[in-house]
Amino acid sequence: MLAQDRKPQRDWQPIIKEFEKIVGKDGVVRRKEELLTYECDGLTSYRQRPAIVVLPRTTEQVAEAVKICDRHDVPWVARGAGTGLSGGALPIENCVLIVTALMRKVLKVDLENQLVVVQPGVINNWVTQTVSGAGFYYAPDPSSQIICSIGGNVAENSGGVHCLKYGVTTNHVLGLKLVLPDGSIVDVGGEIPEMPGYDLTGLFVGSEGTLGIATEITLRILKAPEAVCVLLADFTRIEDAGAAVSAITGAGIVPAGMEMMDNLSINAVEDVVGTGCYPRDATAILLIEIDGLEAEVEANQARVVEICKANGARHVTAEIEAEKRLKLWKGRKAAFAAAGHLSPDYYVQDGVIPRTQLAFILKEIEDLSQKYGYRVANVFHAGDGNLHPLVLYDNAVPGALEEVEELAGEILKLCVKVGGSLTGEHGIGADKKCYMSEMFSEKDLETMQWIREVFNPKGLANPEKLFPTPRTCGEAANAFKTKQFEGAELF
Amino acid sequence: MLAQDRKPQRDWQPIIKEFEKIVGKDGVVRRKEELLTYECDGLTSYRQRPAIVVLPRTTEQVAEAVKICDRHDVPWVARGAGTGLSGGALPIENCVLIVTALMRKVLKVDLENQLVVVQPGVINNWVTQTVSGAGFYYAPDPSSQIICSIGGNVAENSGGVHCLKYGVTTNHVLGLKLVLPDGSIVDVGGEIPEMPGYDLTGLFVGSEGTLGIATEITLRILKAPEAVCVLLADFTRIEDAGAAVSAITGAGIVPAGMEMMDNLSINAVEDVVGTGCYPRDATAILLIEIDGLEAEVEANQARVVEICKANGARHVTAEIEAEKRLKLWKGRKAAFAAAGHLSPDYYVQDGVIPRTQLAFILKEIEDLSQKYGYRVANVFHAGDGNLHPLVLYDNAVPGALEEVEELAGEILKLCVKVGGSLTGEHGIGADKKCYMSEMFSEKDLETMQWIREVFNPKGLANPEKLFPTPRTCGEAANAFKTKQFEGAELF
Repeated sequence: MLAQDRKPQRDWQPIIKEFEKIVGKDGVVRRKEELLTYECDGLTSYRQRPAIVVLPRTTEQVAEAVKICDRHDVPWVARGAGTGLSGGALPIENCVLIVTALMRKVLKVDLENQLVVVQPGVINNWVTQTVSGAGFYYAPDPSSQIICSIGGNVAENSGGVHCLKYGVTTNHVLGLKLVLPDGSIVDVGGEIPEMPGYDLTGLFVGSEGTLGIATEITLRILKAPEAVCVLLADFTRIEDAGAAVSAITGAGIVPAGMEMMDNLSINAVEDVVGTGCYPRDATAILLIEIDGLEAEVEANQARVVEICKANGARHVTAEIEAEKRLKLWKGRKAAFAAAGHLSPDYYVQDGVIPRTQLAFILKEIEDLSQKYGYRVANVFHAGDGNLHPLVLYDNAVPGALEEVEELAGEILKLCVKVGGSLTGEHGIGADKKCYMSEMFSEKDLETMQWIREVFNPKGLANPEKLFPTPRTCGEAANAFKTKQFEGAELF
Repeated sequence: MLAQDRKPQRDWQPIIKEFEKIVGKDGVVRRKEELLTYECDGLTSYRQRPAIVVLPRTTEQVAEAVKICDRHDVPWVARGAGTGLSGGALPIENCVLIVTALMRKVLKVDLENQLVVVQPGVINNWVTQTVSGAGFYYAPDPSSQIICSIGGNVAENSGGVHCLKYGVTTNHVLGLKLVLPDGSIVDVGGEIPEMPGYDLTGLFVGSEGTLGIATEITLRILKAPEAVCVLLADFTRIEDAGAAVSAITGAGIVPAGMEMMDNLSINAVEDVVGTGCYPRDATAILLIEIDGLEAEVEANQARVVEICKANGARHVTAEIEAEKRLKLWKGRKAAFAAAGHLSPDYYVQDGVIPRTQLAFILKEIEDLSQKYGYRVANVFHAGDGNLHPLVLYDNAVPGALEEVEELAGEILKLCVKVGGSLTGEHGIGADKKCYMSEMFSEKDLETMQWIREVFNPKGLANPEKLFPTPRTCGEAANAFKTKQFEGAELF
């Protein structure tokens, strides 16, 4: 029996009263117009209104709220800032949405041991702001970092530009206080990395809300680098840019970030933001950030310039000053928003390929683009092979969305075929669960489901996410789709 | 019912025949004198002869062997090279020992994507040897790396000197082919780090043989650094050495390794190995390795020298040449063997503390040493707070072992009390399971047990390890202890 089939006609009044006892009247949202906000996350193409929204402030309140759901057999979905791009925080019918937005306390700052402990509603950027005065920062930096919250980052194992060198969220989470789906509270990991027993911290990070809610998160912070340099290299052939990426990594250089944009993206950005830095006639540009000691940055900068030129770069410019660096990044950060100006609608894909397949995959995307008759702009984390092709279309044209979805799906299948992955940083959520069997055997998926079932035996925590289910991956898949992705600045 | 209580009088003949069908007659060890080798791993104080030993060569053979055990309800224990120090590969009565020593193939080398795929019996050091010609290496380097195998490293999530900068085994395993306790074969992770779904790779690494056997292991390899420098700083006060460690890390420098030895260890090493480099009158020395680009190493070297001197170092010497660097390391590498010359017996402890507690814990160990009347030599991975106190004693003195165990246990409890851990790199195994409840609540341990039960529902895979059980953590705990640790060069 699927969770949402249970008691669809339930009487919510007594349940609401129970929630109000825990979080107060102002901690429960139940009016239809207020619930609108919570219909979807950053993936606006899927929408479903929750029955009620609960806003706890403490671990204990989260635990009590989860226990109420457990007692009444009510499915629930955890939501952070709602910026996720795979529908991981999408409500299901007649569910309770547990929103951590009011859990915004920094609970501990320990500079000596290089860690902070935060509640899940703390915004990603605040962590760095809290410790930057002392020369530290928090490395994972999704492009939505000024609005996304750490709880959501943990659920989706978020990445970002700097994750090439420093690793994704899971590499920076030392410990978690968790509320499990039975309402019990457990501590996993701790304040040091060397913890015996099973690595439940690592298991929980990236579990997309299916195993419980993290209510206290211990994060590793890093010393800010002494020097930073951003290089822009422009190429007339996209294969050359791909070859430069491989050569830089092959030389043992690990840039803090290494991003690629193609001609379509470059021109979209220059049209909209007008950085004046990106050459409009380039087939592709690379943005490469190098950080470390001053001497190290200087040495690596020289090597990167040399490698780019040896691989056919026309020009390479390098900027050390903070303001000029930001200007170079500005276009990349606006790339998705700018794509919105190229076309009435666009569909963003998130796939991963082994770095060595860059040139091949770009050629294939070009072929698919021509075959389907839709333009594709390419913007991506080249250093770790994480592609974000943007398929441009007009939703007003009947049948366009379906064709674009098919095209985007073909790109994804291609990623898996060459040894890559369905998602680099946006997660599986509601959006990609039907693709999981492209990547994993039935037995592999069954093994993952063991974990889900043992943590979440009643299936109440974030049902219908992450794993394919026959019902939702069949013909009913598109039943509650309304319109395609409209987000802009959340990457 | 405990696994080993099942059918103790079983008829092994038909089972042996089944194994022989799978791995051939020479793949089954059954003669008592040959089984002696397999009575214990590197922790020689616990001994138990297995019923039989099976030596498979392929994933399929491992799967078939596990299925035979499953069918006959026979408990089994996986063993790699047998160098583990926590009794993780200790047999239990009437068990089958599945030894991966013949699974020694390097299955794939992909330099472009910086990975290798190996069978579990491949020796740690071979991985680097395989790729060093092309300028790559495998980072995790337990001191036993010339004899320990990758399968065991995965089971115990092994560390090493270079793990301070590069992370432990789990940070270098991209994917695994696993044989689960029901004999099924699954693939977890892959060849790229960005895999969706639950991180079963991370869950399996460090699970100490309780969830299955890894039969193919995909490892990340790194580009060898351009330059390396080893510094030796000597101090007259151990607190100063501790303060220097904190100051170096606090300055944002991440040495490849940072090790401390106290006066007792220094003199033991000089007596035995005679490096001629370690000042015998120093209270403590630090050995600090820095690697990276030449410019980076030069800059960091200058800063480390400055920090050590500012924190009271009498002298700091630095060596760049490979031969001289090896000479500086030689004493550290021989420290455990040398301790054997200080005293007829010694007990090695493995605990972790937050780095900031270094000075405090050393003082406490000194107090405990005086209280119990046993000398303690300190040798440890100072950079990550991983202590290896060596308690010196004479096993011929009645009651000495018990006192020493109590003293070592007090040190461990102290580690946990100040926010540290029961083990840095040796694992829990049979040795420390009774301490797990010092570190985890009942609910935390129960949550870990969920994982064990779902993967290993019959409890046949490595029973009586990792978690405390009332029977073995009660008065019967010492029943099968024979004598104290005698290993020497396995660190």
